[in-house]
Amino acid sequence: MSEVKRTDVNELGEFGLIDHLTERFNNVNASTLKGVGDDAAVIDTGGDDAILVSTDMLVEGIHFDLAYQPLKHLGYKAVIVNLSDIYAMNGHPEQITVSMALSNRFSVEAVEEMYEGIKLACELYGVDLVGGDTTSSNKGLILSVTAIGRAQKDKIAYRSGAKVGDVICITGDVGASFLGLQILEREKQIYMSSPEVQPDLEDQKYLIGRHLKPEARKDVIEMFAKNKLVPTSMIDISDGVASELFHICKQSNVGAYLEESGIPIHPDAEMQAVKFGLDPATCALSGGEDYELMFTIDPNDIDKIKYLPGIYIAGEITAKEDGVKLHTKGGNIHDLKAQGWKHF
Amino acid sequence: MSEVKRTDVNELGEFGLIDHLTERFNNVNASTLKGVGDDAAVIDTGGDDAILVSTDMLVEGIHFDLAYQPLKHLGYKAVIVNLSDIYAMNGHPEQITVSMALSNRFSVEAVEEMYEGIKLACELYGVDLVGGDTTSSNKGLILSVTAIGRAQKDKIAYRSGAKVGDVICITGDVGASFLGLQILEREKQIYMSSPEVQPDLEDQKYLIGRHLKPEARKDVIEMFAKNKLVPTSMIDISDGVASELFHICKQSNVGAYLEESGIPIHPDAEMQAVKFGLDPATCALSGGEDYELMFTIDPNDIDKIKYLPGIYIAGEITAKEDGVKLHTKGGNIHDLKAQGWKHF
Repeated sequence: MSEVKRTDVNELGEFGLIDHLTERFNNVNASTLKGVGDDAAVIDTGGDDAILVSTDMLVEGIHFDLAYQPLKHLGYKAVIVNLSDIYAMNGHPEQITVSMALSNRFSVEAVEEMYEGIKLACELYGVDLVGGDTTSSNKGLILSVTAIGRAQKDKIAYRSGAKVGDVICITGDVGASFLGLQILEREKQIYMSSPEVQPDLEDQKYLIGRHLKPEARKDVIEMFAKNKLVPTSMIDISDGVASELFHICKQSNVGAYLEESGIPIHPDAEMQAVKFGLDPATCALSGGEDYELMFTIDPNDIDKIKYLPGIYIAGEITAKEDGVKLHTKGGNIHDLKAQGWKHF
Repeated sequence: MSEVKRTDVNELGEFGLIDHLTERFNNVNASTLKGVGDDAAVIDTGGDDAILVSTDMLVEGIHFDLAYQPLKHLGYKAVIVNLSDIYAMNGHPEQITVSMALSNRFSVEAVEEMYEGIKLACELYGVDLVGGDTTSSNKGLILSVTAIGRAQKDKIAYRSGAKVGDVICITGDVGASFLGLQILEREKQIYMSSPEVQPDLEDQKYLIGRHLKPEARKDVIEMFAKNKLVPTSMIDISDGVASELFHICKQSNVGAYLEESGIPIHPDAEMQAVKFGLDPATCALSGGEDYELMFTIDPNDIDKIKYLPGIYIAGEITAKEDGVKLHTKGGNIHDLKAQGWKHF
């Protein structure tokens, strides 16, 4: 037998692997307006609307730890992360499917608890559960959620639409979810070595809440419609500001000039980062799972967002040749590093 | 701490658990024409067409065994089982998303092989890969595929449309996939105890092929359109004829009279069942994963299928009070037992 080549998936990383696997696929259906490569696929309905489809898989031990993630919150979050992808296209989610594989350590009552969270998210965001699959697993819990949404074709915000001179905006503070996770991981380690120590997490409520029970920015999309604003590009911040900005720049074929001072960081996150000996800006740039939106707008639209609460201007789109730069608070300008959360 | 109630998921079974978890969900969107409970969800586009969405999760060690399932065939099959659900609505699949979680024992080359199979299925069935998610798992391979299709709203075949007097039809032989699996399982046991024994599977090519690389009945749906036939109800045979007929009867609020002699069984399946000491009819009724279609038609439409090759008339829809009966080849009439493949 000849030697078989074996390349570790870590060599490519998640995005590299997806690119590699899907590059040889060709789309043949006219209804496929956008396939792989954005927050959601875009499918033509034949009318003014398009259907948006996004899917995410959550694996126990990789994406969540049931030692500190209550099942109800997990169900809620599994829905939210998918709705966020639909909002990131400037669309509205209307349906979800939920598939799960679970080992026999899960009781009906445990699954009910998770579905309580799924139901709560469906109710709050006005989404219908329309299908799924339920099966057993040999180990742990795996959730796969698909969100189906709708948008007017001419109002869809792709990652590829940013133009030189566009303003980069962020809808809320970032880095908090990452710091919440660090707190939970630390408490788990303490509990495992000294189970008698009672954790006091009261002061870190905001950070932990951002991690365990994030929200999706439905309100922002509604505000866009009300203010007749269509972002030139948009993405949700699931892997960190830096990683998402690289996606926009790559697909829009542009560069960016990011202002560190323009990146919103919650005071609790600022304080906690310092306690951990971490740079708050690095947490904001590379920490993931905040589910805020990053979008770009034409500078002529700046008046439409200037007086809106909670929209932060964080930089400007530049020419591709200028690269993706970070202007630090200290006054330095250097290349931005992408260090999103990679689950490989 | 008070005692917590713990119900094992096996007590409810897959369908019982889904019913239990989803019964408290209410649909709020007008675009949701059909939610949980059919082969696919049906979503209004606003025009004459509807979008169909179906999803399936395949777990290593539960749904497939890589000891005998080549990865290329697995990728192919994962797509096929989802397309089959769209055809079972009398629709045409146009897009799929593929999510996977894989442990570090899988190399890039192994994943490439699986995607070769996915690509082949996409090409043969004219379907576009439009998205997905890729992540690591702590153990094994998990695949979650969602198929998105399209159908004219007034031509969708639901499980709930069967009427008393309708004719029950099956599109091809059943039970072969189950017997193919039994052969593969036997060979695996032999290999594990005596690795030097070379298996001779040449004679069982048909049965093994039905299990490892099934096809979906795109041709049947095309034939329906050509012959202007709309089934009154339809379902794909993934869990066995008996289980699927029960789904139709339950949702259509009817009974059925199934003729054992009308259920198509391949000669190889017949022979292999006898070799295993199994009743061929039981294999056909309760063996799953054949991915043929079972449908009902108005008796006035009988001329439209009478001369079609490969459509088998297997019985008649009766009143609910008459129950679901099997008329055996031996001349006995007894209650049909549902024993689909349950992965719990």
